[in-house]
Amino acid sequence: MTHIDLGNDIPGIRGLFEYRPDTGRVLSDLGEVLLRGDSTLSRGERELIAAYVSHLNGCRYCAGSHGACAAAQLPGGTAQVESTLADPGMAPVPAKLRALLAIAAQVQAGGRAVTEKEVAAARAEGATDREIHDTVLIAAAFCMFNRYVDGMAALTPDDPAYYAATGERLARYGYAPPR
Amino acid sequence: MTHIDLGNDIPGIRGLFEYRPDTGRVLSDLGEVLLRGDSTLSRGERELIAAYVSHLNGCRYCAGSHGACAAAQLPGGTAQVESTLADPGMAPVPAKLRALLAIAAQVQAGGRAVTEKEVAAARAEGATDREIHDTVLIAAAFCMFNRYVDGMAALTPDDPAYYAATGERLARYGYAPPR
Repeated sequence: MTHIDLGNDIPGIRGLFEYRPDTGRVLSDLGEVLLRGDSTLSRGERELIAAYVSHLNGCRYCAGSHGACAAAQLPGGTAQVESTLADPGMAPVPAKLRALLAIAAQVQAGGRAVTEKEVAAARAEGATDREIHDTVLIAAAFCMFNRYVDGMAALTPDDPAYYAATGERLARYGYAPPR
Repeated sequence: MTHIDLGNDIPGIRGLFEYRPDTGRVLSDLGEVLLRGDSTLSRGERELIAAYVSHLNGCRYCAGSHGACAAAQLPGGTAQVESTLADPGMAPVPAKLRALLAIAAQVQAGGRAVTEKEVAAARAEGATDREIHDTVLIAAAFCMFNRYVDGMAALTPDDPAYYAATGERLARYGYAPPR
């Protein structure tokens, strides 16, 4: 049960957005620009970073939704996402993305845990400054989204079909709410 | 030194906003609506929650800036902020705010650390659902801002006068950037 009465029974962060639409709109804008805006990282790659950080934070709702959204957009689908979350150091993804996932893990541990070592390793695999920046910000943003969802005890469905449908919807329509 | 070349030498999160203005605008909007928008919590109280979470995350830049901004708006000024950060359980603030700070600390530890116990304690001191919601979201947002600033190794001035001036500026003009 959610910690407060949201006045709706919509699962996850969408129920929170409905409860307070003004913050919901800004947070939706943030998801849209980070995960779907212009970038040299594909949408699937960015969703994988989001799913990985959510998994590290133990946020079942976000890991499920963004994992499914990554799977819907990555060439290796669900198997690629599951292998990455299970063993990120051996993730079946390009070496550059593997190095960016290592930066994301440090951000999840705490901002000061990101050192020149992880940044240099990502650069050595071809990551640009902008890709390093965006990885840090995506990882940081999911440290917020995850805490918002679980800190409010938002409804978290158990049915895998819910997440598959959510992932498909997000991949197709994105995060921007109607104005 | 910042982990990437930002193309500017502006301290803290403002240098990051200048580097990528489109995400900067959305993040500024988030700060504005959370810390200065309509609320039954005063602006000083919300800044104190932000400063406290930043302090727990060890983010010197954000703790300094938002601590100074809280001090500029709270009746007890700097002494009230410093006493709160040093011993939040005995913070010289109304009991309701003390209970909300305890929720914020749980959010900082991780979303699932927030339990019915802290929520019930805040309610017993008169906190509304909306105040509980906003405390969770402010605390979660600073878990993002802090990680963004330190994960990029943003420039963090040592001079206390920098933070005092920043706090005054934020208290007066807020977070919304020019459009």
